[in-house]
Amino acid sequence: MKKVFVLGSTGSIGVNCLNVISNLKYDFEVAGLTVNSNTQLLLEQIREFNPKVVVVRDESAAKKISGKIPKGCELLIGEDGLIKAAVETEYDIFMGAMVGFAGLAPTLEAIKRGKRIALANKETLVVAGEIVTKLVLENSAEIIPVDSEHSAIYQCLVGENLEVVEKLILTASGGPFRDKDKSFFETATVDEALNHPNWKMGSKITIDSATMMNKGLEVIEAHWLFGLPAEKIEVVIHPQSIIHSMVQFVDGSIKAQLGLPDMKLPIQYALTFPERVRNNFDRTDLPAIGSLTFYEPDLNKFECLKLAFDALNTGGTAPCILNAANEVAVSKFLLKEIKFSHIPLLINKALDKVENNLSPNLGTIFECDKVTREYVNQII
Amino acid sequence: MKKVFVLGSTGSIGVNCLNVISNLKYDFEVAGLTVNSNTQLLLEQIREFNPKVVVVRDESAAKKISGKIPKGCELLIGEDGLIKAAVETEYDIFMGAMVGFAGLAPTLEAIKRGKRIALANKETLVVAGEIVTKLVLENSAEIIPVDSEHSAIYQCLVGENLEVVEKLILTASGGPFRDKDKSFFETATVDEALNHPNWKMGSKITIDSATMMNKGLEVIEAHWLFGLPAEKIEVVIHPQSIIHSMVQFVDGSIKAQLGLPDMKLPIQYALTFPERVRNNFDRTDLPAIGSLTFYEPDLNKFECLKLAFDALNTGGTAPCILNAANEVAVSKFLLKEIKFSHIPLLINKALDKVENNLSPNLGTIFECDKVTREYVNQII
Repeated sequence: MKKVFVLGSTGSIGVNCLNVISNLKYDFEVAGLTVNSNTQLLLEQIREFNPKVVVVRDESAAKKISGKIPKGCELLIGEDGLIKAAVETEYDIFMGAMVGFAGLAPTLEAIKRGKRIALANKETLVVAGEIVTKLVLENSAEIIPVDSEHSAIYQCLVGENLEVVEKLILTASGGPFRDKDKSFFETATVDEALNHPNWKMGSKITIDSATMMNKGLEVIEAHWLFGLPAEKIEVVIHPQSIIHSMVQFVDGSIKAQLGLPDMKLPIQYALTFPERVRNNFDRTDLPAIGSLTFYEPDLNKFECLKLAFDALNTGGTAPCILNAANEVAVSKFLLKEIKFSHIPLLINKALDKVENNLSPNLGTIFECDKVTREYVNQII
Repeated sequence: MKKVFVLGSTGSIGVNCLNVISNLKYDFEVAGLTVNSNTQLLLEQIREFNPKVVVVRDESAAKKISGKIPKGCELLIGEDGLIKAAVETEYDIFMGAMVGFAGLAPTLEAIKRGKRIALANKETLVVAGEIVTKLVLENSAEIIPVDSEHSAIYQCLVGENLEVVEKLILTASGGPFRDKDKSFFETATVDEALNHPNWKMGSKITIDSATMMNKGLEVIEAHWLFGLPAEKIEVVIHPQSIIHSMVQFVDGSIKAQLGLPDMKLPIQYALTFPERVRNNFDRTDLPAIGSLTFYEPDLNKFECLKLAFDALNTGGTAPCILNAANEVAVSKFLLKEIKFSHIPLLINKALDKVENNLSPNLGTIFECDKVTREYVNQII
């Protein structure tokens, strides 16, 4: 019986993860759950999965349910609670399903314990890729990616040698605005940006998909996961989201992984790898789908994607600045404080103004994240 | 330095194979070459590759060049020469690039010697799959498929476990007649049938592609190569021939191998496996290709494909009867003795009339092949 700790259990990935664990209940059980503030869903999850520990990050939300936690389940609170749970709970697999920079610290604790990290939190590798990669090696931990793109590449690389990879081809749906002109970005509303054609996801990642920053973060993540430079990572728009990504080898052969746009498959793979376990998920019916199309992304239109490539090439804390500025800009857009077209402008300003530390340690990364947020918050 | 024996060096696969060996000349050399009757090209190949032995199957063609063979190269003649060369030549890899049933006997000799068989000759597995598979195991030989479809599946299975395969999805271009009505088959000419949209191949296999018997033979071949029953092997029409085939696993994940329609890539893979070696073959540019399409084959229209599935399910010598009848019918069509629409009719008659031996040995297979050919030849 494998024990799974789910960091961020009420988000889209977390809920899908528990769904997968239900299907695999003879081999997997839940060791711990953490949420930000959705305590209502947490209580349901506690009843169904009987975790030993739960963490509520928001302190006032935590206080409201402290009387409702069943015996045998410990309630921890706040950032400290997240760290304590990641450090002390008994688990085999750490599902990093929390969105944003805040997922970094508890994930680092799981890595230090040499656990398997099923990684859905992009920011862990985006902001601290070099440090995380080193820490994984030192502690014999392992990262199995959960993002459908990186899971696809991981699957295509099984039995292959990284040294004979010519390039990675990340596919991108192009998001809700793939067929819009750049001028449309001046008037794009929050509702329009949240209307993703293929994937049902949280609001932060859906906006990132509309700006294509999501793909930019994935390029940086792929760089650290697979050890390849930016020039060996390509992005192709594939509106149907059926080919989840591809690997091209030095002999010209390309391997691709296909599936429906459903996170349950890459989540299950990250839990069961190297095994594949039978399930009743819907199957991909290519004749019914009919056509898969591909075209190159317009980097002039999707400036965030270009900014991400640039930040990866710059290195140091540039990806951290990129990510922090993007998090603030996206939340400002969601609050209707800025236009959609202002998102790349704010990120670009931050990359220009916040000092880049080319040899960062964890301390300077946390500091850089903080400084960048402060900087972007005071721009307008 | 690996030594390669090329059975059928002047056909399409053979010429491509020598082309690949030229590119890999620091690691591979030619041990032997065999041809049917194209001695002019053989002499050029001898000058370029310096084989120790060559075989000319056609005796009168052989006599004409016996004086032109350079010193240090032995000339053997006829079927006996093929066997002797396969048995006695020193080589590491046997490239079975000869078309038709006649490729079986020398391939069996290479298997008995425990060699790597780079297998392009479909008939070896179609007519004698059970015997060949057993012989491969007993002699620690290995078969690496060269057909682009089977090479694709082989590549997708690297690092994966055959037990978790849910189905194989063989792609088919649909051939030159994929968009024609069945009624067109009554008047289809040899030139029309030889006009394949994607692949440049020999005439036998191009006609097989027009009838989709080629895909039928590949289904049977896939059955023996990967040990899966007919109901786990699916055919999908994919007119662009970019996805060469796919594997669907029990978790619903699909892996595909993509490349341009060029046999050099699967040939190189069969030679260098498990390595992948850098080359300068043209690369696949998905944005330039734009669209990949898929639909289900019409088994009522492509009767040969249905006959092949039926023969696989029947077992015994049924695939041998199917293959022999098809070889005779195709040559009759190429000689304009029968209509295109008669090809499945002749095969169906042979399957109906020639006795099926459900536990064949090599002797009964050779006998079945002979009897079937005689039967089909006397029908009209």
